[in-house]
Amino acid sequence: MSQSIAFLGPKATFTDLAVSRLFPDDTKIAMSTIPECLDAVSEGQTDLAVVPIENALEGSVNITLDYLVHEVDLPIRGEIITPIQQHIMVHPDNDSPAFLPETIYSHSHAIAQCHKFLHKELSGIRCENTTSTAAAAKIVKENPERKIAAIANEMAAQEYGLQITKHNIHDFSHNHTKFVVLSKSEVQYKNTTAVPQGYKTTLMVMLPADHSGALHQVLSAFAWRKLNLSKIESRPMKTGLGNYIFIIDLEMKMDDVLVPGAISELEALGCKVSLLGSYPSFMVEEAADQAEVSLKTR
Amino acid sequence: MSQSIAFLGPKATFTDLAVSRLFPDDTKIAMSTIPECLDAVSEGQTDLAVVPIENALEGSVNITLDYLVHEVDLPIRGEIITPIQQHIMVHPDNDSPAFLPETIYSHSHAIAQCHKFLHKELSGIRCENTTSTAAAAKIVKENPERKIAAIANEMAAQEYGLQITKHNIHDFSHNHTKFVVLSKSEVQYKNTTAVPQGYKTTLMVMLPADHSGALHQVLSAFAWRKLNLSKIESRPMKTGLGNYIFIIDLEMKMDDVLVPGAISELEALGCKVSLLGSYPSFMVEEAADQAEVSLKTR
Repeated sequence: MSQSIAFLGPKATFTDLAVSRLFPDDTKIAMSTIPECLDAVSEGQTDLAVVPIENALEGSVNITLDYLVHEVDLPIRGEIITPIQQHIMVHPDNDSPAFLPETIYSHSHAIAQCHKFLHKELSGIRCENTTSTAAAAKIVKENPERKIAAIANEMAAQEYGLQITKHNIHDFSHNHTKFVVLSKSEVQYKNTTAVPQGYKTTLMVMLPADHSGALHQVLSAFAWRKLNLSKIESRPMKTGLGNYIFIIDLEMKMDDVLVPGAISELEALGCKVSLLGSYPSFMVEEAADQAEVSLKTR
Repeated sequence: MSQSIAFLGPKATFTDLAVSRLFPDDTKIAMSTIPECLDAVSEGQTDLAVVPIENALEGSVNITLDYLVHEVDLPIRGEIITPIQQHIMVHPDNDSPAFLPETIYSHSHAIAQCHKFLHKELSGIRCENTTSTAAAAKIVKENPERKIAAIANEMAAQEYGLQITKHNIHDFSHNHTKFVVLSKSEVQYKNTTAVPQGYKTTLMVMLPADHSGALHQVLSAFAWRKLNLSKIESRPMKTGLGNYIFIIDLEMKMDDVLVPGAISELEALGCKVSLLGSYPSFMVEEAADQAEVSLKTR
């Protein structure tokens, strides 16, 4: 049965790209903010939601975390990590070596991510901010008579019928965005084209008091059990429950002995521990462009 | 002597607000991306740069961190933490109880931050995304004949002569953004209206290998010296230098004994440690609106 998925839109954003890889056969519903996505799944309008949680281009991590912590009771059912690959694209009518854009449209973060390229290759060309990379592609599509280009992803080029004139113009090649899949019930990963990367378990730990020793004790509970942490992040809490909250990702599936043992030990230390989810992790492989095929795939 | 400051613009963003509190007498120069701000100070066009580094509304943390780690050699000379307070505002011509906007303009993150308020109080009203909260205020200023409102900060209301019809409509009252002050030379904090919060020292630690025990050892070096960590954040490194990088904030000024001792111990464990800065921390106090004055200030 097809699942309905609320995602951070509009069409052809990086979130859309991640959803399309993970759930190729399901029904996507674009929402304009992260809380709208979370409300949709929380109130039963959709089966699941996919929103950015780390290094987000079109969303904000903290909005997602704050909602997960304070607002909704939705387990994490999966994560997908997508490389952020930015390309420069023009209307097909303007696809000639002589065409030089006067203005480049994109989201401010995308422009910032391609700063060195723009500085070196297209110095002096005006950049205009748009609300998403997909919105930039749409402007280029609708204005073939104007000397403009967009910075956006491959999906936006396809969606709006644009021609990519230069692939992979982003400055740092290791830039990724992590998205989480949230649902009240079990999620079906059918025909996914993303690559499985094993399992993760995410815990939220509130320390009883703000001192360095407490965090050290928390980590001891994992270290002596040889539980590998793939991420730890502190967030300030201003709600009186404690000074800091830690989001900890373990590189394993929830088990019957080790993780419950660590949780009990943390609770005995006075911490409040919540399980945000235990779930499969997926990765979207980087698309090699023509120029790089020989280096990367042979 | 007046200092020149590159900041993430446009005028009346939350970055502008932070800079105006911290450096009321200095010269502000608005830039449109974080890398532009960092290049400006790095290449000597301005004396300093102020950019968001955590929980950013108009910028992305990771862009700032990646630039600090990989690109520029600029010490952190200060930080300022600003509460994110969102207000709804209209053109003064439309400031009547009978006025009901048909469309509300703001940055998508601001709309997301006010999601519950909008859902409850202004349900069904269309929201349109803009590239910044300040840009939304500008649209409202320029279109008095239209039935529109903006969500933005107090500074934007002043800058564009708008009337705030409802203060503090953001859902979570503990939402803050942290900005860092970067400069090659000493920074003068003259006539600042922000409140000093003591000193911090920020270290970047690269672990030799990716295992939970390594992080535990790193924290031991601080814990047994009773050095208090106010923040720890892991970031994946994809450059071959190690799997993870940790950004650690200590709640103290760099000293001659304890911090250098911890650094030496970390280096002996095979870590690569960089001092990103040791600097004063400032806080902008929350502005109380009329309704809240009696509760908060008396």
